[in-house]
Amino acid sequence: MRGLLIVISGASGTGKGTVCKKILNDLPAVAYSISATTREPRPGETDGREYYFLGRDEFKSWIADGKFLEYAQVYGNFYGTPLNKIEERLNRGEDILLEIDVQGALNVKKKCPEGIFIFLLPPSLDELKRRIEGRGTETPASLERRLKNAVAEIKIGLEYDYVVVNDTIENAAEKIKAILTAERCKVSRNADKFIFEGGF
Amino acid sequence: MRGLLIVISGASGTGKGTVCKKILNDLPAVAYSISATTREPRPGETDGREYYFLGRDEFKSWIADGKFLEYAQVYGNFYGTPLNKIEERLNRGEDILLEIDVQGALNVKKKCPEGIFIFLLPPSLDELKRRIEGRGTETPASLERRLKNAVAEIKIGLEYDYVVVNDTIENAAEKIKAILTAERCKVSRNADKFIFEGGF
Repeated sequence: MRGLLIVISGASGTGKGTVCKKILNDLPAVAYSISATTREPRPGETDGREYYFLGRDEFKSWIADGKFLEYAQVYGNFYGTPLNKIEERLNRGEDILLEIDVQGALNVKKKCPEGIFIFLLPPSLDELKRRIEGRGTETPASLERRLKNAVAEIKIGLEYDYVVVNDTIENAAEKIKAILTAERCKVSRNADKFIFEGGF
Repeated sequence: MRGLLIVISGASGTGKGTVCKKILNDLPAVAYSISATTREPRPGETDGREYYFLGRDEFKSWIADGKFLEYAQVYGNFYGTPLNKIEERLNRGEDILLEIDVQGALNVKKKCPEGIFIFLLPPSLDELKRRIEGRGTETPASLERRLKNAVAEIKIGLEYDYVVVNDTIENAAEKIKAILTAERCKVSRNADKFIFEGGF
């Protein structure tokens, strides 16, 4: 079977990163496709693990060299999904997880409609606010901007395939794992199972 | 959320009944919609539990009274899905499981495309043969007819949403449960989750 292209997205502060880490930890066969960004690393983030941290000039040269499946500018920073032979890897049967912002994920959906597009929601807007504040990396101005944008971003979730409320990491991860199991059972991915060699 | 209409089908002898029993046992919130049939009860089957066992004249009067969502003739016997207020129950949020033959399930799909159509496959044709023989209720003629029809029926599975190989009851039930979890996460079933009251 061709690998699954799993795209996990959600408004800023919904906990995409933590949920993706849990999925990758629980399902070692799923490969993480590392995004590139021009934003500053947060405490604990390492270049080539969470992101490829690029300078703006370097990012622009990756664009020029056709190295991105998609890229987008979010809150003044660039984010991109490197091609990294994604197509070849899917054809080999490898499952690939992309964690992308809302805008970038929709760009991937246009190019790869067979992907599985999962939108994470916060349990409530109050909880979302607490999470963004708690991160401690926002200025009052950037916090306000993020919260305002989150409401707009959440509406875009209606264009995804699945929605998962990130109430706890465990619940969200269990639901995402069920989605992957179900997707592997789709008739459209299993046409070969209906051909029995021989017969009676 | 509206309830899920879960339709489990598969060629004769793939173990639909056993798998459905396991699902109903594991998920007590799912209600079983009992089918009606004119075939003889098998050992251990009780009227009103596995099936409503009707005489042919009684079955025909149910048809005349518009009591069926669908009905079909299979191997000389009639099988039908009683309406039993299915629509009202789904609107109340009740999940309803239908176990139907291949032909009947496709008729339901035409009327209720929002249903979840799951096709059970045997692990192999040899295994299917062993299972039908092992049932001990077939004459040589009916066995041969069932096996020949099974190959034709399996091809119809390509029109379903999901395919689950019934290698063990536990594996098949786990996959079906994952499918139900995934379906509950479909954006199309969760439009209300994208409307946050208030805002900031």
